[in-house]
Amino acid sequence: MRMNSAARLSVACAIVFVFAFGARAQQQPCPTASKFGPDDQIGNVNYITPAKTLAASKLVTTGKAYRLGIETNKDTPAYSTRTFSITVVQPGQVAGTSFGPNKTTYNDDIITGWVGIGSQIDGFGHAGIDNLYFNCNRAPDFAMVDGLKKLGIEHVPAIATRGVLLDMAGYFNTEIVKEGTTFNRAEIEGAMKRQGIKAIEKGDVVLFYTGWMKLLGRDDKRFISVNPGLGREGARYLASLGVAMVGSDTSNFEVIPFEKDAGLYEVHQILLALNGIHILENMNTEEMVKDRAWEFLFTLGPARITGGVQAIINPIAIR
Amino acid sequence: MRMNSAARLSVACAIVFVFAFGARAQQQPCPTASKFGPDDQIGNVNYITPAKTLAASKLVTTGKAYRLGIETNKDTPAYSTRTFSITVVQPGQVAGTSFGPNKTTYNDDIITGWVGIGSQIDGFGHAGIDNLYFNCNRAPDFAMVDGLKKLGIEHVPAIATRGVLLDMAGYFNTEIVKEGTTFNRAEIEGAMKRQGIKAIEKGDVVLFYTGWMKLLGRDDKRFISVNPGLGREGARYLASLGVAMVGSDTSNFEVIPFEKDAGLYEVHQILLALNGIHILENMNTEEMVKDRAWEFLFTLGPARITGGVQAIINPIAIR
Amino acid sequence: MRMNSAARLSVACAIVFVFAFGARAQQQPCPTASKFGPDDQIGNVNYITPAKTLAASKLVTTGKAYRLGIETNKDTPAYSTRTFSITVVQPGQVAGTSFGPNKTTYNDDIITGWVGIGSQIDGFGHAGIDNLYFNCNRAPDFAMVDGLKKLGIEHVPAIATRGVLLDMAGYFNTEIVKEGTTFNRAEIEGAMKRQGIKAIEKGDVVLFYTGWMKLLGRDDKRFISVNPGLGREGARYLASLGVAMVGSDTSNFEVIPFEKDAGLYEVHQILLALNGIHILENMNTEEMVKDRAWEFLFTLGPARITGGVQAIINPIAIR
Amino acid sequence: MRMNSAARLSVACAIVFVFAFGARAQQQPCPTASKFGPDDQIGNVNYITPAKTLAASKLVTTGKAYRLGIETNKDTPAYSTRTFSITVVQPGQVAGTSFGPNKTTYNDDIITGWVGIGSQIDGFGHAGIDNLYFNCNRAPDFAMVDGLKKLGIEHVPAIATRGVLLDMAGYFNTEIVKEGTTFNRAEIEGAMKRQGIKAIEKGDVVLFYTGWMKLLGRDDKRFISVNPGLGREGARYLASLGVAMVGSDTSNFEVIPFEKDAGLYEVHQILLALNGIHILENMNTEEMVKDRAWEFLFTLGPARITGGVQAIINPIAIR
Repeated sequence: MRMNSAARLSVACAIVFVFAFGARAQQQPCPTASKFGPDDQIGNVNYITPAKTLAASKLVTTGKAYRLGIETNKDTPAYSTRTFSITVVQPGQVAGTSFGPNKTTYNDDIITGWVGIGSQIDGFGHAGIDNLYFNCNRAPDFAMVDGLKKLGIEHVPAIATRGVLLDMAGYFNTEIVKEGTTFNRAEIEGAMKRQGIKAIEKGDVVLFYTGWMKLLGRDDKRFISVNPGLGREGARYLASLGVAMVGSDTSNFEVIPFEKDAGLYEVHQILLALNGIHILENMNTEEMVKDRAWEFLFTLGPARITGGVQAIINPIAIR
Repeated sequence: MRMNSAARLSVACAIVFVFAFGARAQQQPCPTASKFGPDDQIGNVNYITPAKTLAASKLVTTGKAYRLGIETNKDTPAYSTRTFSITVVQPGQVAGTSFGPNKTTYNDDIITGWVGIGSQIDGFGHAGIDNLYFNCNRAPDFAMVDGLKKLGIEHVPAIATRGVLLDMAGYFNTEIVKEGTTFNRAEIEGAMKRQGIKAIEKGDVVLFYTGWMKLLGRDDKRFISVNPGLGREGARYLASLGVAMVGSDTSNFEVIPFEKDAGLYEVHQILLALNGIHILENMNTEEMVKDRAWEFLFTLGPARITGGVQAIINPIAIR
Repeated sequence: MRMNSAARLSVACAIVFVFAFGARAQQQPCPTASKFGPDDQIGNVNYITPAKTLAASKLVTTGKAYRLGIETNKDTPAYSTRTFSITVVQPGQVAGTSFGPNKTTYNDDIITGWVGIGSQIDGFGHAGIDNLYFNCNRAPDFAMVDGLKKLGIEHVPAIATRGVLLDMAGYFNTEIVKEGTTFNRAEIEGAMKRQGIKAIEKGDVVLFYTGWMKLLGRDDKRFISVNPGLGREGARYLASLGVAMVGSDTSNFEVIPFEKDAGLYEVHQILLALNGIHILENMNTEEMVKDRAWEFLFTLGPARITGGVQAIINPIAIR
Repeated sequence: MRMNSAARLSVACAIVFVFAFGARAQQQPCPTASKFGPDDQIGNVNYITPAKTLAASKLVTTGKAYRLGIETNKDTPAYSTRTFSITVVQPGQVAGTSFGPNKTTYNDDIITGWVGIGSQIDGFGHAGIDNLYFNCNRAPDFAMVDGLKKLGIEHVPAIATRGVLLDMAGYFNTEIVKEGTTFNRAEIEGAMKRQGIKAIEKGDVVLFYTGWMKLLGRDDKRFISVNPGLGREGARYLASLGVAMVGSDTSNFEVIPFEKDAGLYEVHQILLALNGIHILENMNTEEMVKDRAWEFLFTLGPARITGGVQAIINPIAIR
């Protein structure tokens, strides 16, 4: 049909209209919908069943327990505006006074700081796609200034599951894997093969060791700004396996500089927003690598601060 | 020798002097010395060996994991001047802006508050006797305004050990044990017998269930100011058994009103200062009691905030 | 011309297009442009010249000085999520220690809180129109999470100018003017006439007394949520007179409930964003009204916290 | 009477007791008592009468107003553990939302930090002698962790009085007076003579200009740790003249290194604790020196934060 220019303009307008507003007009499925239903707030943690936990407990053979958290203080490398400080006080004990005939004295502490410093768990409220977060939660609906009203860190259930440690430094035969080195499916499978790990399963926590933490205190600037890490294909691969959480011994977790053609923190979006998989940062697995503790019982209880986006954590791995 | 009155007076004064200051003059052993040596900072956690952890892992029979932490927020009952608040921000995303072609958006959080609110671990820097803390640490030497320089919460090792839950509400055959009800040796042994718990061992974490947490949100004032709890004899008894930590579902842990003739928070002094045993407060064991989960694998990794006196925690019990 | 439906649609689309994007497409003048030029950050404070200050100093006849600030603390009525707390510490003086042979002891203080509590000055970064602020500053360009990069409170010059106090309670012949009572031009001129104030001039600070502060401590909820105050016409009127600042003894300053057909905080937009006139809140002029101190030297130096949006203030009026 | 040894011992002990505690037993006058009576909390500010203020207002001849405050932010030089940060938020405006048909948007700010950073007023609760503060206030009685219960900064009345600027850099004929240079009576009188200042009077605010602030941003370490300043004799001299406040363009105000045989911060004790004279730090008088503004109207309203020890200030000088 031959269209006159007015008609063409109409069609153009209509296309513009649909392009600009079409998603809402037609009720397209939300890309961050949870496979566990519209009320889900815990994502792939749903895969950590009692059977899973029970099986993981049987991975304990030596009884050695590892503390995965690093210290958080005002000198911990942190992003631009993030700060942290602790103040210790002795209320009511000025001038050496104490309480009662038993002379009780006590110290109390006050924390002021950004949570995103040190060993971290990213809640699902941490990263989104244009203000759309996991399970179709839109920021204006839940991200209030006094705390998240959905996806808050207090919702994370008790975590006790199988942990898998991928020794990427060993895989690349280096002490510290170079920044920008991307871990995708091939590297993940290659490391598993090298270490004799048969499978990564639903509900697992997968940790990457890169040696990057050796830079802490030596080159904090480099430590915080770049690192080796997971790429998009690797993220989608682990998502396809149904892992509950992923982590590494770096601050950013995903590879930086970002992959060619990747957006900013796209892996965070893939894991947190699109797949309901938590990210763990600054996990200190140095000693576990020395002990070749590749599979273990991973436990984690983030402090349940209502409405928190992230939490400063210290998971316990037991093998 | 015949002494004149002046000389006698000198002697008398000298005796008074010795009486008043003798302890320091004669270098008496410090009452808070650790049995684990002058450099020890972890107290009875020393008893949690790999063998202990391994044995505890075998207590896992169902794979059910319990989250023991309650939520911490501005409405959590807290002592007098303690306050808590969280602020959620979206740095650099004013007016709906985002980052990159993938439109990354993110929330970040900032915490401002006293640590002693909600589910707690008391570090050994929390309570002392006239400014003398665990293992002979004197407050002026380690309690700095920007953090404890000894006994800081960052020193707590990975905790994975046998947990024992004493159902005191069941023992007293009540829903909520009344405030001022004291748990001493007889009550502890009585509860153990009723529940079929054979022994409390070195390195155990012993938790008391009282039902007191049912008052949360119903009568916060009563919840925070009084509660049933451990008495001095009970504390010494558990210390004699070498437990690593004790806890309960109350805020104060020890019995309040205090026992007749007891000082203020004397049980805290006995456990923390004199015996190097951590105290856990506001442990939510409601569900464990329903499941009769009396013995279990207890895991805990307090956030490693350098110089912290306490930590907000969320231990994971697995059975 | 007879248009077919396609053409009509085209025209409609075109109109929509222009309506939605026309302003940007055509580079219209920014509505918040300062009459003092593109680099201006101080607005009508530009009208406070040395001559103005000198003249104002001559208004001092009794030498009585008034403190206009109220106290700010954790109990000061504040909006929803705003909190405030102060902590007093004695660094390095635990257990009664002091410094030097002269036994110096000292207290130090730490503040944690929202600035918008108590007696306030609103900077020009406080209120905007769809993220457009005074003098064409767009929020994404200057409102950074670690402080405003333009319009920060540190830019406010030394304020010493003529102050005018309008006794609206006297005008309405009441002790406390009722909430929702609007002050527009007629009320302003009526009060001036009643009080014998000849004129309001360029560079003046105009304060309204309503008696509303008598509710503080009696009905904090009502105090904070509604009040009498300036309306839109009154705001435009004062703007036409070139006042530098306006204020009142209420928390919201402008009338609430808002005027019929008014938007939310539209008067804030008129004064701050469109006219570069600061707003002062919670100005305690009770004693000045008792003394009939209608014209006076008004002085104010807000604490120069870099990047601040507002400041907690305590102006000094001298008469 | 013949006394047995036990009786003698009692007597001896009694003598020792009196020796040790006699001062308190005999009720010696408190050295920090205010000349204005036992309830006084404002010290020499009592000398700022309306007559004083009126006379000071007549010192205004040009109408030029000076802002004496410097900026306070995270980079302002500060003592050891002191930190400061500001956070700007847009509550409820995530993803570019706004309020109402008039699209109100707003920024809000939150401050976290030690007050003792930047331009300061030291309240009388700031420095004491062995926990004894101005007007016999003992720290255990008023220095509570949630604010001072006496001597809080909220008590400072409206300050409008004669200001005197002593140009010590001019007196010593240098750009920056060297650290450790002490200003005692001879220097004060010498500067007055050089500048033609006839007298320092009761209720005056005396500011010292040293040029030290030129080090800000050039050598922050030196700026904060040492400076020229008032010595003990000079402090007692100014106290004898009944000044209300003293200040300078340095952080410490008093001379550091301290005078030979002086204690630590002894001048602070002399002024604050013994004489009820406030200290002002980091007063930027650079421009006033250029203008030879030696005598002026000094105004100051510290933010009335209940229980505050100090305040961040920005006094306005008018000449």
